[in-house]
Order: sequence, then structure tokens, then C-alpha cells
Amino acid sequence: MDINTDITKELKLVDSFIKKDLIKEKTISGLYRYIFNSGGKKIRARLNLVSSSANKHKDRFKLASVIELLHTATLVHDDVVDNSPTRRGIKSVNNLWTNSHGVLIGDYIYSKAFILMVEIGNMNILKELAAATNDISQGELIQLDAIENLNISLNKLKKISYFKTGRLFEAAARTGAMLSKSNKSYLENISESAKNLGILFQIRDDLLDYSIDLKTGKPSYQDLREGKVTYPFFFAYKNANKKEQKQLKDLLGNKKVNQTAANKLIIKLGGINKTNKLAKSYFDETIKYANKIKKLSVKQEMIELANIAINRDK
Amino acid sequence: MDINTDITKELKLVDSFIKKDLIKEKTISGLYRYIFNSGGKKIRARLNLVSSSANKHKDRFKLASVIELLHTATLVHDDVVDNSPTRRGIKSVNNLWTNSHGVLIGDYIYSKAFILMVEIGNMNILKELAAATNDISQGELIQLDAIENLNISLNKLKKISYFKTGRLFEAAARTGAMLSKSNKSYLENISESAKNLGILFQIRDDLLDYSIDLKTGKPSYQDLREGKVTYPFFFAYKNANKKEQKQLKDLLGNKKVNQTAANKLIIKLGGINKTNKLAKSYFDETIKYANKIKKLSVKQEMIELANIAINRDK
Repeated sequence: MDINTDITKELKLVDSFIKKDLIKEKTISGLYRYIFNSGGKKIRARLNLVSSSANKHKDRFKLASVIELLHTATLVHDDVVDNSPTRRGIKSVNNLWTNSHGVLIGDYIYSKAFILMVEIGNMNILKELAAATNDISQGELIQLDAIENLNISLNKLKKISYFKTGRLFEAAARTGAMLSKSNKSYLENISESAKNLGILFQIRDDLLDYSIDLKTGKPSYQDLREGKVTYPFFFAYKNANKKEQKQLKDLLGNKKVNQTAANKLIIKLGGINKTNKLAKSYFDETIKYANKIKKLSVKQEMIELANIAINRDK
Repeated sequence: MDINTDITKELKLVDSFIKKDLIKEKTISGLYRYIFNSGGKKIRARLNLVSSSANKHKDRFKLASVIELLHTATLVHDDVVDNSPTRRGIKSVNNLWTNSHGVLIGDYIYSKAFILMVEIGNMNILKELAAATNDISQGELIQLDAIENLNISLNKLKKISYFKTGRLFEAAARTGAMLSKSNKSYLENISESAKNLGILFQIRDDLLDYSIDLKTGKPSYQDLREGKVTYPFFFAYKNANKKEQKQLKDLLGNKKVNQTAANKLIIKLGGINKTNKLAKSYFDETIKYANKIKKLSVKQEMIELANIAINRDK
């Protein structure tokens, strides 16, 4: 049986499970439905389902839903933090309603995830998800330091990518393995593969922000406009002479970025190339650990996810 | 032994426990310390310690810290939501830093509470705290509906007071009873007493906002300026004729409220009196359930908390 067909079916079940929120308060149900009707790729939920596929526990869909809810809660808060006008191709909550709605519905979704994970009742899973959500908030906070910060180190950028994105990928894989009572080597390999996959995913996201193409559903150069130093800018800046450094400084946090000029400069200074190389190194790590997984269908799925991540154009 | 002396000592231990956060990232530790150095009354942590005092479990301080952390996380988010300039007499995080810092450090504190409660490892406590934090976020979201809403019902206002404030008081008492493995009647009586105490606390808070006195450490008429319909305004409006309704409408959401005029009108229309009566009814309920508690020291402490709440002037 093709695991992809299975996983696609299973993701639909996760989607219905999430949407079946029984809250009666109109304000809340309205916000909730708006957020979850726009779907999203559910790559973390998919990863979790793949990881728990070895042994089909009754709470598999519930756990995958928890992962997706946690992810969505962070997105909703991120949009407030970044003042983003859109999400998944439609207006963000903070844009269509207010920042207040974004903050509070994010809290609602996070605590809903918490309720569901307590229902699953596995203390190790709870521990991992508590640690992961704390790390995610740390990653987001550290990222605030990256704003207009030309002295940020590569290590700090890597920590941000790991905490912000890699950490939930890792937790999705690890808790899936925990739920299916998999052996330690499986748990470690899939967690490590997933962690690298998440970081790869984030690096590709940073790269997409530097693409002129608008397939992402969000404005290009959003990071640059917000003054956020990400990998392409970082590598370009490291490689720049005084004059170019001055030009780059002028671009950072500039709401009216000249896209063509910015694009040329970052490419010329190797920002895109070096970031692509970095992405490739995380791709290789993802594959390396995926290859250590004995269960063939899981290994294949991890390799496919790595390929999706490195080739993603949205 | 006087329980108050004990509890005061214990609250100091809770305070040190909370402050002992080992995070090394400067941005995060700076924010964290700033928030927790300003102290606060810790009435919810106190309530939790009182409730768990029957049987001194090793994790009593940890649980009380969890309650205080959860409360603080909601305060930090509230200040973003309400755009409040101050908290506990000093500048709010959103004011001294940014809204983004407020959102994210709130998430950090909430997930830290989550880590600690998982360490306690009691599934019933986890269940109660997950439900409570979800209810709190619901209360806050429903309150957004109360803004500039002259048609809000008394029942809706009561739901807001319960979810926003009573719910965490209730959870503090219930989880304390759970931790100390108390019997069912104790658990039910202290939870019910605490729930009413929390609602009383919120009503007094609403009343304080209508006081000219500035002991609250926040500007008077903040609710009114924000367009938030609370009990004093609600009762005054119910009792107003067409002309007075028009005057009240003009006050609601008016950033430059004429304090003397507002004060006179709300008092004249019975807004303060009726709210005081409502407060008294929750005080009576708090006492009624407190009196059903067999453990004398706990009963006394609940009665004292009720007196503190009804007499609070900050």
C-alpha cells in the first residue's frame, strides 16, 4: 500500500477532528473556523502521523491534531508579532480583526491543544510538548534580537531556526514514536531526521522571502522590510565591502525596498548561494538519519518530506 | 500556629522558586526578571497553598508557582490586548518593550508553567489546569464582545467575570485539594468558595476602575476609556433615561473622559450601588462554602481572603 495515499486520507481525518470544535460562543467559533478553514500544508501533522505509523494507537489522530493546533497557535501569534497582513493566502486574524483577537485566539488554540494532549494521557508526550512549546517561544524571543542586528552570529541564527521551526518538527516525530511505543533507535533517528528537516524547512522559508515570486502568499522581502536578519542577508553582509555594507544597512528595515536592487546585491554577494548550500547540508543530515530508520515506509516518507522541503516554492 | 505567618513565609518560597529561572538568553532573562521583580499580591498562589495545606506534598510550592506563572502569563497578554501602559505600578512589557515582546514572553511564561506542572505529574491537576487556561482565554475573547456593546446581558458579564478571573481561583483551590489528596466534599467546597471569591475579586476590580483614587497603580476609568462595559456602567445604563443613555454612550470609549461628570452620573444612576450589592452576594457565597470546610485553618483563611477581596482598595 502506498503510504502517501494513506497519509493523505489520515490528514483529512486530522482536519475534520480539528474543525470539530464545539464552542458555542460566536466570536470564538467564528475566529476558530476562519483560521482552520484556510487549511495549510499540515506538514508537522503529517510527520507525526508518519512517525506513529509503526503501531496504530487509537490516539494517533488526536496527537497529530495537537501538533497542528500548536503550530497554528504559534502562527497566529507570529502574525501579531510580525504585524503580517496575510496568512495562507487570506487576511491574518490581526489584520481582519485586531491584534487583541490574534493574541487571545492563539491562547485559546494553544490551551485547546493542551486539553487534547492531557486526554491522550502519556506523561512523556506531555513532557516533550511542554519543552518544545517553551523552546519555540524562546526561539521567537531570540529572533526579536535579530531585528536590525548586524552583529548577529551564525550560531544565533541557527539556534533561531532550530527553536522556531526545527523544534516542533522534532517533537512531532518524537511524540509520534512515543505514542507508537517504538524502540529507542527509531525514536532517536526519526527525531534527528525531523529536527534537520524542520531547520531545512525554515531555511527554505527564509530563501523564499528573498524570491520575487509571490507564490508564498505573502509579500516578498517581508523579513527584510521588518528589519529581520535571516541567512541570505547574513551571508551577503559577511561578504560585503564597506560600501556594500552601507547599501545593505539601508535596505534593512526599509519599508520601500527597491526589490530589483536588493535582489541583485544579495545575489552578487553570495547570500542566496551560501544559504542554498546551508539548506543542502540540512537536507543531507535529514537523509542521513532517515536512512538509519529500519521501517521502509517511514524511511521513504522522510526522504520524500526532505525533497518536498528542499524543492518547496511556497 | 498562625496560618497567615506560615502562608506569608511560604509565598516567599514561591517567589524565590519562580525567580530561579535558569535561562541564559539575555533578552528572555531580562524580560522575565523585570516581570517577576514587581511582585504582586500572589493571591491565587496563596489560595492554592491554603488549599493544599491539609497534607504537605513535596510539590506544593511548585504547584503554587505554576498558578502564579499562569496568572502572570495572562496579565502580560492582557496588557497587550488592553494596550495598558502600566502593571503593578511599573511600565507594562508592551509599553517598555513592544507588543511583540509581550505576546512572546507571555507564551514563554505559560509554557514554563506547563513544564512545571508536567513535572508534578498528576494527570487530574493537568486536566484541570488545561481546562482552566482554555476557559480563561474564552473569557478574554468574550470580553472583546463587551467593547462598545450596550446590549450585553448581565449573564454575559457574569460569564466573563467567572471565566476571566473566577476560573483560575477555582482551579487554584481545586488543584491544591487534588495535590493534598483531600476528600471530595473538601474539594468541592473550597473550589466553590474560591470560584465565588474570584468573581468577587473581579467585581471589586471593576469597581476600583470607577474610583477616582489612583491606588490601583493604573489610570482610573481605564475600562470606560477602552469602551469596556463592566458592571458599574451596565447597571447605570439599565437605569438611565434616553438623555442619560446618550450621555453614557458618549462616555464609553471616550479617551478624554470628564472624570467628575462620569463619576456623578454613574453614582446617580445606581451603577456603583448595584455593583456593590452584586459584590456582596458573591462575598456571601464565598463565606457560605468556606463555612462548610471542616479544617478550621483553611476555613479561616478563606474567610480572610473574602474580607480582603471585598475591602480591597488596590
